[in-house]
Amino acid sequence: MRSRKPIAFQGELGAFSQEACHQLAGPNAAVLPCPTFESVFNALAARRVDTAVIPIENTLAGSVHENYDHLVRFGVRIVGETNVRIVHNLIAAPGVPLRDIQRVYSHPVALNQCLKFFASHPTLERVPFYDTAGSVKTILEEGLRDAAAIASSVAAINYKAHILKKSIEDDRRNYTRFFEIQRSGSRARPAPANALWKTSVVFNTGNTAGSLFRALSAFALRDVNLVKIESRPLRGKPWEYLFYLDLVGRENDVPIANALRHLAEMAGFLRVLGSYPGARAV
Amino acid sequence: MRSRKPIAFQGELGAFSQEACHQLAGPNAAVLPCPTFESVFNALAARRVDTAVIPIENTLAGSVHENYDHLVRFGVRIVGETNVRIVHNLIAAPGVPLRDIQRVYSHPVALNQCLKFFASHPTLERVPFYDTAGSVKTILEEGLRDAAAIASSVAAINYKAHILKKSIEDDRRNYTRFFEIQRSGSRARPAPANALWKTSVVFNTGNTAGSLFRALSAFALRDVNLVKIESRPLRGKPWEYLFYLDLVGRENDVPIANALRHLAEMAGFLRVLGSYPGARAV
Repeated sequence: MRSRKPIAFQGELGAFSQEACHQLAGPNAAVLPCPTFESVFNALAARRVDTAVIPIENTLAGSVHENYDHLVRFGVRIVGETNVRIVHNLIAAPGVPLRDIQRVYSHPVALNQCLKFFASHPTLERVPFYDTAGSVKTILEEGLRDAAAIASSVAAINYKAHILKKSIEDDRRNYTRFFEIQRSGSRARPAPANALWKTSVVFNTGNTAGSLFRALSAFALRDVNLVKIESRPLRGKPWEYLFYLDLVGRENDVPIANALRHLAEMAGFLRVLGSYPGARAV
Repeated sequence: MRSRKPIAFQGELGAFSQEACHQLAGPNAAVLPCPTFESVFNALAARRVDTAVIPIENTLAGSVHENYDHLVRFGVRIVGETNVRIVHNLIAAPGVPLRDIQRVYSHPVALNQCLKFFASHPTLERVPFYDTAGSVKTILEEGLRDAAAIASSVAAINYKAHILKKSIEDDRRNYTRFFEIQRSGSRARPAPANALWKTSVVFNTGNTAGSLFRALSAFALRDVNLVKIESRPLRGKPWEYLFYLDLVGRENDVPIANALRHLAEMAGFLRVLGSYPGARAV
């Protein structure tokens, strides 16, 4: 059974992260918008929420490195994942036609993912804003008649705005992957019977020849499939790194449990961030 | 012999990237400040410069992913590297005392690396700015008497400003690694006799079990030392990645040449970004 506490996400109502919350917890799940990624993790640590949803990578922009750092720092557990297709729309106040628009507000990443639209509308000025949905909110609240925003269709509905142009993103193969996280030690969720499980781990190795190769051999020798590898600098040890791996399988499956024991022999630091039913491939 | 064309870097005069230019090409090297990383690569492609210097990773903030993407897109060659220790200073107009300061301008990454200073000066407002040295320039040009900037000591000298407080960064183990780059096909530089060579390559593998492990085996089986691995999303192929490796050794050393031939058998795409004398370890 779902907790009745809301699910924390970063951004304003209507952000793509809110879409991820509903994909994971159903259309009626209560949500708690938070201003920063750190405040999402803080809400979880302070028990204001029992579940949070964070973006971890985008197929065009790459990994959200800040959230990788927070996963280790806050000691949370990954319990689910989902992929949201990013569809950008040009959104304005009701009754405002495209020809009146002079400025377009949005998050810099979103502005950067609609370059073909701006190339074919060269008079439009791009204004970087802190949030996609927040730019819709601001335009409506301030009653701007010469400005539009780039955001999700949910943001348009949410702030009673009007979609001037649908799907203006350059690349339709634009997905963001989200993790559903809980405090570590919280009770495991019942899993769907046909789930394809994934496990995420973080570790560091010594800085010796072949140490990463030997670390990966723990999985390769047991035919455990590695889906993703990501490195982040290790604070206080210049030019050393933490490695984040996503594996196919569950922490207590025999090959993975053995591989983790093998990796622990070599790793200075090793933590399992969670096993979770993987999102369907896109 | 050095070309007489200037060396391009991103930022204003006095940026840490300019320090990297002088570490690589001597104190009297002429430099060309460029507004964005992309414009640095464009200056090289358009032959306005023959050499450019770009940051590639910071020991606290991690990799500069935009520059990894440009390295592949622009087809350049890495010919050198250097590490700059990042020392942040609080800088104001001459004659302005610390007690008059109300706002502090700098690049968001620099503001974020001086959190202890801000914790002990809680009334100071942090103002994100596009560039560290640019914030010194603006304060001096606009004659601001209630604002300071966080930037390098070179920026203070350059804009005839005054250092109010030296070395306010939280962590002294803060280094940025820079690549010196040229157009591919440009003539190789004479190498120092005692150079420790490094080679950077980029490749992608199929999305099959163990494919990254097998790719790394090409190097491990020949005792080639892997210094760094970085992954970036492959555009147009959601959830596939390009991998960037830094190896110890030179492209035409026998073990590396063999390893690259072995890797080419497995990789869908493989390019050597360059062999270069490595910076001294820090």
